[in-house]
Amino acid sequence: MTECGNTTCGCGEEKCGQGSCNDENCTCGKESSDKKNNNELNHVKHVVAVMSGKGGVGKSTVTALLASAFRKKGFKVGILDADITGPSIPKLFGLKDSPKSTGCGLLPVKSTESIEIMSLNLFLPSEDEPVIWRGPIISGVIKQFWEEVIWGDLDYLFVDLPPGTGDAPLTVLQSLPLDGVVIVTSPQDLANMVVRKAIKMAEKMDIPILGIVENMSYVQCPDCGKKIFPFGQGKVELMCQEFKVPLLGILPLEPSVSAFGDQGKIGESASSDLLRTDLLLEILEK
Amino acid sequence: MTECGNTTCGCGEEKCGQGSCNDENCTCGKESSDKKNNNELNHVKHVVAVMSGKGGVGKSTVTALLASAFRKKGFKVGILDADITGPSIPKLFGLKDSPKSTGCGLLPVKSTESIEIMSLNLFLPSEDEPVIWRGPIISGVIKQFWEEVIWGDLDYLFVDLPPGTGDAPLTVLQSLPLDGVVIVTSPQDLANMVVRKAIKMAEKMDIPILGIVENMSYVQCPDCGKKIFPFGQGKVELMCQEFKVPLLGILPLEPSVSAFGDQGKIGESASSDLLRTDLLLEILEK
Repeated sequence: MTECGNTTCGCGEEKCGQGSCNDENCTCGKESSDKKNNNELNHVKHVVAVMSGKGGVGKSTVTALLASAFRKKGFKVGILDADITGPSIPKLFGLKDSPKSTGCGLLPVKSTESIEIMSLNLFLPSEDEPVIWRGPIISGVIKQFWEEVIWGDLDYLFVDLPPGTGDAPLTVLQSLPLDGVVIVTSPQDLANMVVRKAIKMAEKMDIPILGIVENMSYVQCPDCGKKIFPFGQGKVELMCQEFKVPLLGILPLEPSVSAFGDQGKIGESASSDLLRTDLLLEILEK
Repeated sequence: MTECGNTTCGCGEEKCGQGSCNDENCTCGKESSDKKNNNELNHVKHVVAVMSGKGGVGKSTVTALLASAFRKKGFKVGILDADITGPSIPKLFGLKDSPKSTGCGLLPVKSTESIEIMSLNLFLPSEDEPVIWRGPIISGVIKQFWEEVIWGDLDYLFVDLPPGTGDAPLTVLQSLPLDGVVIVTSPQDLANMVVRKAIKMAEKMDIPILGIVENMSYVQCPDCGKKIFPFGQGKVELMCQEFKVPLLGILPLEPSVSAFGDQGKIGESASSDLLRTDLLLEILEK
């Protein structure tokens, strides 16, 4: 990953703010010309990726809770599920319908809360069918989900990323005009280490970190009220201080969240109230 | 993914048992000629991949517990960490040393229990440094970890896979002479759905499923003893019945496992006693 230098940027001027770089291995931060959504039916005001590096810390759940919270505030919201080989978003919202195709592109499927959703799982004959694809095909599908889907007018599009720092996250960070990323972590040191890789990846690519959410922080015993910390006590405040980013919420490991998700009713979970959505909104609207 | 047909198999005979197929997109099940370990210093008797499809269900922890349990029985054991962008194995065993290189290849790093370990994280200047690589490079590294590492004489090599059904799992399932895969799941329906993708991927590629481990099944309140099911009650027995594979263990979400892992002493965790290693051994030695 190296910077391209002036010569490969369209405008020929360094740091003019309008230059674009088409070298997909370049980290110069200049907007690639393909970052714009060239589908003229689409007007998406803000794009926010939800990222972690680590698997299973609740990226999809946090994406769904954020989207639901923003929708409750009256915004037009969409979710692009960029986890192509392990997509969770349709199940969380109980979606079964296939996206319809028109001459102009694919129509997202609407949840009961009117969140517009596009995910590869909506195309599969059964939800547990694997897609055994290598990176270039996965990247191609993510680009199609951005350019060839009729998102229409959206205030906020949330992008649910898969774990790792490979093809899918790299394509999203390079190809979509992100306002920034929300990082999801869990209290385990092991998760912490891998999450730091994701933060450093975003930093290297000049993508702003909007804030951090700690998920699965504790379990509360329903009988005696004791707080149990199955992954140890979190260090998310220290992480926020170190990277100078705000804490966007601490979520417990709460059986009802998992149950709402398994029933396809994640929008009904009250856990979205634990996210500091007003703070995130303030950062995004700046 | 299609079958290659007779013509691309080296022997020219269908189902002769010795044919090899070099088409990496083919699912004919005939052993590719590169599946053998051509490094003449290596004699690895059994290779077992630990897979899930879903992230964060404890693949690395189960890999480490299985390796430790087999080591305690006196076997010579190694771990190939195929999670290139989110490697957890070195941290679980508290390893910091870099692998040494000789004229014949790379030497794995030995844990205190004498488990031979190779992981990309052992090569990085700091453990939280991201590797922002696309699929072909990731696949190349995994192949190098198999062929260019001096594993020596091993009874069992465990391969820790990353989440998803993309490049890394595909390369391991295609390029390594696996005895089979151990599947790790958690009780959540959402995990269940994604895990089924991994099982179906292995089935499509004619790789035997050796058994299933359910992790994070419950949390036990240390004060009142109540069993809490933060991800709902598991359905792993049903999954085992459906796919006709044995249950290899049910592990609780136990703070001490996470703590041992965070301290780099996963080998000291007693949780490996909850795994049915004798059953797995019996299956492998058949």
